[in-house]
Amino acid sequence: MKVGILGSGEVGQTLGIGFARRGHDVTIGSRTPNSEPLKEWARKAGPSAKTGTFAEAAKAELVVLSCLGSAVDEVVALAGPKAFDGKVVIDTTNPLVFENGSPPGLFVGLTDSLGERVQKQLPKAQVVKCFNTVPSSLMVNPKALGPRPEMLICGNDSKAKSRVTAILKEFGWSGAIDVGGIDGARWLEALVPLWVRVSNAVGTWNQCFQVARA
Amino acid sequence: MKVGILGSGEVGQTLGIGFARRGHDVTIGSRTPNSEPLKEWARKAGPSAKTGTFAEAAKAELVVLSCLGSAVDEVVALAGPKAFDGKVVIDTTNPLVFENGSPPGLFVGLTDSLGERVQKQLPKAQVVKCFNTVPSSLMVNPKALGPRPEMLICGNDSKAKSRVTAILKEFGWSGAIDVGGIDGARWLEALVPLWVRVSNAVGTWNQCFQVARA
Repeated sequence: MKVGILGSGEVGQTLGIGFARRGHDVTIGSRTPNSEPLKEWARKAGPSAKTGTFAEAAKAELVVLSCLGSAVDEVVALAGPKAFDGKVVIDTTNPLVFENGSPPGLFVGLTDSLGERVQKQLPKAQVVKCFNTVPSSLMVNPKALGPRPEMLICGNDSKAKSRVTAILKEFGWSGAIDVGGIDGARWLEALVPLWVRVSNAVGTWNQCFQVARA
Repeated sequence: MKVGILGSGEVGQTLGIGFARRGHDVTIGSRTPNSEPLKEWARKAGPSAKTGTFAEAAKAELVVLSCLGSAVDEVVALAGPKAFDGKVVIDTTNPLVFENGSPPGLFVGLTDSLGERVQKQLPKAQVVKCFNTVPSSLMVNPKALGPRPEMLICGNDSKAKSRVTAILKEFGWSGAIDVGGIDGARWLEALVPLWVRVSNAVGTWNQCFQVARA
């Protein structure tokens, strides 16, 4: 299969090598197809890999979009939108913004959460977002998930998070993954529409996201 | 410890029993504390559990907010915001909206995604969101995650998703969890700010979310 990769950063290079090593013809597209790092990439990727412009890469039968999220419009324009007609396009991009440094937000939205609203309504309470990412069947009975089930939590007060972590351990969780201040609730809450979709896909509500370390 | 639970639905009842069975004094707060289902809950939960108004439940030293997301403002008002001062509040709520039926969105935002924008820009291409929720170290080398690593994908075209699933299997994934149309990209993309926060918390970028079935 001919594969075109639009975007030659780490993701594009990784997927490009992944395809090339499995015998696919890969063209990685870039503004600078003759740069030293891309020549080096092509040497590593082997004889079925080459570099080209975005327009050259987009001629392939399958196209992978792997540029920065903020560059999608420009890359599509440089490749020529008609080149994508009738093709499978694998979109790996993320609309990340680092306005307030890292960790990032998204430029498509989510600048608020119910957790933040609760903390604002109760300024003298120590709000900890917890339990919202797992079904009630698992809240106080998590061992069915595996030997070391972990809960995702966030909140502004460290002592409050320690107390909640102790409660989680009472309930059978091995511990909590603390994703930071209460603004982390934006992403813990956004996990739930995804969780519903996953439930539909896998055919059970008795599931939840766990962090797998490689 | 005295625990007050605001909201007597499935989540409140489950956590209430979880606390009560471990010896904590639990008051579950409700608009209708004397309803038959709540009396039944109290019998099941045992002698350290009782029912009360939201204001009565909020007197506890630790408060769990477990009402519907859309009811948070009202429940806090009924409990009396001052009751929360100085206390740990476990917020389990989610700002779900079912405007377009199930699966839901969030009333705090996310009505767009980069995946949808790409599909709109390329109306005659079959866009599949894929690879955006895992680090590049795992994209073509997922076995380190465990024996059955799964990728989250979405897109409007079933055949395109089948083709992408075949590619994933070539790369060592056991398969894909298909969360639906390209609007699912809202939630796949929202996983990434959370993934960065989890990386900070667990001290490695070589991790990703996997769906654990109970």
